[in-house]
Amino acid sequence: MTAGRVIKCRAAVAWEAGKPLVIEEVEVAPPQKHEVRLKILFNALCHTDIYFWEAKGQNPLFPRILGHEAAGIVESVGEGVTELKPGDHVLPVFTGECKECVHCKSEESNLCELLRINTDRGTMLNDGKTRFSKNGKPIYHFVGTSTFSEYTVLHVGCVIKINPAAPLDKVCVISCGFCTGFGATVNVAKPKKGSTVAIFGLGAVGLAAAEGARVSGASRIIGVDLFPNRFEEAKKFGVTEFVNPKDHNKPVQQVIAEMTNGGVDRSVECTGSVQAMISAFECVHDGWGVAVIVGVPKKDDEFKTHPMNFLNERTLKGAFYGNYKPRTDIPAIVEKYMNKELEVDKFITHSVPLSEINKAFEYMLTGQGIRCIIRMEE
Amino acid sequence: MTAGRVIKCRAAVAWEAGKPLVIEEVEVAPPQKHEVRLKILFNALCHTDIYFWEAKGQNPLFPRILGHEAAGIVESVGEGVTELKPGDHVLPVFTGECKECVHCKSEESNLCELLRINTDRGTMLNDGKTRFSKNGKPIYHFVGTSTFSEYTVLHVGCVIKINPAAPLDKVCVISCGFCTGFGATVNVAKPKKGSTVAIFGLGAVGLAAAEGARVSGASRIIGVDLFPNRFEEAKKFGVTEFVNPKDHNKPVQQVIAEMTNGGVDRSVECTGSVQAMISAFECVHDGWGVAVIVGVPKKDDEFKTHPMNFLNERTLKGAFYGNYKPRTDIPAIVEKYMNKELEVDKFITHSVPLSEINKAFEYMLTGQGIRCIIRMEE
Repeated sequence: MTAGRVIKCRAAVAWEAGKPLVIEEVEVAPPQKHEVRLKILFNALCHTDIYFWEAKGQNPLFPRILGHEAAGIVESVGEGVTELKPGDHVLPVFTGECKECVHCKSEESNLCELLRINTDRGTMLNDGKTRFSKNGKPIYHFVGTSTFSEYTVLHVGCVIKINPAAPLDKVCVISCGFCTGFGATVNVAKPKKGSTVAIFGLGAVGLAAAEGARVSGASRIIGVDLFPNRFEEAKKFGVTEFVNPKDHNKPVQQVIAEMTNGGVDRSVECTGSVQAMISAFECVHDGWGVAVIVGVPKKDDEFKTHPMNFLNERTLKGAFYGNYKPRTDIPAIVEKYMNKELEVDKFITHSVPLSEINKAFEYMLTGQGIRCIIRMEE
Repeated sequence: MTAGRVIKCRAAVAWEAGKPLVIEEVEVAPPQKHEVRLKILFNALCHTDIYFWEAKGQNPLFPRILGHEAAGIVESVGEGVTELKPGDHVLPVFTGECKECVHCKSEESNLCELLRINTDRGTMLNDGKTRFSKNGKPIYHFVGTSTFSEYTVLHVGCVIKINPAAPLDKVCVISCGFCTGFGATVNVAKPKKGSTVAIFGLGAVGLAAAEGARVSGASRIIGVDLFPNRFEEAKKFGVTEFVNPKDHNKPVQQVIAEMTNGGVDRSVECTGSVQAMISAFECVHDGWGVAVIVGVPKKDDEFKTHPMNFLNERTLKGAFYGNYKPRTDIPAIVEKYMNKELEVDKFITHSVPLSEINKAFEYMLTGQGIRCIIRMEE
C-alpha cells in the first residue's frame, strides 16, 4: 500500500532550459483535497513539452517535470474525490473541467475557469505548493500534469476516466494531440461532406485535423507544410494534395484560392505561426469559408488582415483542445477508437523507454516521425 | 404608354464630389435584356450615398445619380424578364441575386457572383453603357440602383417583388439599412434569449441591429456611440445601456468586459471604423462570444488583434446585407412588418420632397434623426 505515503520513483527532470532531461529519483507527496495520484504508464511527447523546455519567450520555471500527453492508472485519491478510485484507467489532461463554473456550464465553452491551462503556475491549486521534490527541494509541476514521472499528482478535474479495456500505449495520444486537431475540425470547422479543407502544419495536431476532415467526408484535403518529407506520411491521414509555401513566389493563400476556384470551404491552422494563421484565414472562400486557429501564437504576435476579408462573409474562430470538455467528452472518443471509428495507431511512429526520453526530444526536434511513445516501465 | 420609349423625368444629379445635388430633367432609356425600369416613389437617404457623394478615398465617378434605399413600381420590363410585370410593387437592392451562381446556390452566401455590389461600375452589365443621359451626355449609375431619379433601370436580379399592400413610404427603409443591421444580428450573430449584446454605432444600421437583439430576447443591449444625443432615441430600439468611449480613459472593450463579467455574448459593429471593429471583437466573452462586422472599412484599414483572442474561443464573422438573399428572403421581411412582428416606422424621423433632397443630406451630415424619406412626387 502506497496510499497516504510519499512515493519515491523515477522521473525525467528538466533542470535547465534546453538541457537534456535527467532521470532522477524523486519524491511524490500524497494527493491532497480534490487531488489524485496517478501511476503513469505511457507518455507521448508533444511539441508543447518542447516549447516549455526550450522556454524561449516565456518565464522559465525550473527545475520542472514536463509531460502532459499520457495514460495511467489511479494509485490513490485525496479527500473529497468521489469520481475516481484506485485502479481506474485514466488520461491526464492539461486543461480541466470543474463542472461548476460558467464555462463548464455553458454548452459552448471548454475553458474551465478553475482548471483552464496555466503554463506559468508550477504548483498545485490546493496549497500553492509542489507535490514533487528531490532531497526535500521542490520540483515544479507543468500544466497540472507532469507526466514524465512514474507517479504524479493532478487535480481530479484534470483526470479523465476511460474504458479499462483501452490500450494505454495507444490512447495516450488521445489526451492531447489527437483531440486538439480532430476536435478543431469536427467540432469547430465542421466541414460538410464533399467540401474542401486546407490543413496548415502536418505535425500530429495537423494530421489529427486532417483525420477529422477525412472522417467528415471532405472531398479534397490540402496539406500545407514547409517540410516536404511530411507529405508522404500525411497521405495516410487523408491528405490528398500538398502545398509547400517555399515552392511558390506568391502568398500560399493565393495558391490555394487558385487551386480551389476561390478558396477552400474550411481551413485549420495547426502551426502557431501567425503568418500561417493569416494565410489560413485568407485562403477560405468568401460567402461561407470558416478558418479555425489551433496553434499557440507567440506573446507579441499580431493577427492582421483587411477587415473586408471578414465582411465578405468569412469566419475566423479559435479552437482550444478541439472544443472538447475533457471529462464529459473524451471517454466517448476512446470508445470510438475501440469501435474502430477512429484511427490512432498511425500517429505512433517511435517508442523509447523513459531512460531514453532525450531520444524522443531529438526525434521531434529533427522532425522524425509523428509521435514517440515513452514507456515508463523499462 | 411609356414602355419602349425614352422617359424624360426629374432626377437629383451629383455633378461633382461633395457639391449639392442638382434637380435636372434627364432621359431614361428603356430597359434592355434582363432589365427592368422602375418608377421610384420613395427614397430614404443612407450613409453609403453620402460616402460615394463625398468620394473620399475612392475613384470619383461623376456625374452620377446616387440613391439605393428606395421603393417603387415596375414601369416596364426588358427582354427575357418573366418574374416581374408592369405595376408590381418592388424594392430595388444594391446587391442582387442571379439565382444561378455558386453563391446563390450556396445555402450560406448572399454574395452573388454576377450582381454583387459594385461601387466602381457606373454602367449596366448588358452593354456596359448607362441608361441615364442629359442632352445626350451619359450620367453614371450607382450600385445598380440610382434611385434618386423618378425613373431608373435595374437588372432584374436587383429588384425584389413585395406585397402590393405594403406602404412604400415605410418599407423603402427595409431595402438597405434595416436588413443590413437586423439580419446581422438575427442571421449571423444569433443571440440566444437572455443574452447580452453590444451594438457599436447607433445610426440606422446599428439601431436595426439592436432591434434584432430586442426581437431575439436579449436581456441587455449595450449601445456604443461617440454621440450622446443618439442615446435617448436608441432606447426605442431596445438599447438598455450606453457607453460613450469618450467618457472613459480605458479601451471600450475593457469597459464592456467589466460591465458584463468578462464580456458580452454577442457584438455587432455598425460603424465602419476599424478601431470599433477591433473593440467589438475584443469585448465578447471568451469561450463563446461572437462578434459580427457590418460597417464598410476604408481601403487601407487593417484589423489587428492578438491571435490568443481567437484561440480563447471567440468568433469573428462579417455580415453583408444581413446575410439575406435579397429576392428570396426580403419579401418575408416585408410580411413580418405587415404582421407587426417588426417595427420599421420608428426609423423614419424626417421627410422632404425631391426638390429639397440636399436637406436630407444636411440632416445626415449633422447627425439629425435616423432616416429621412425623400418623396419623389412633390
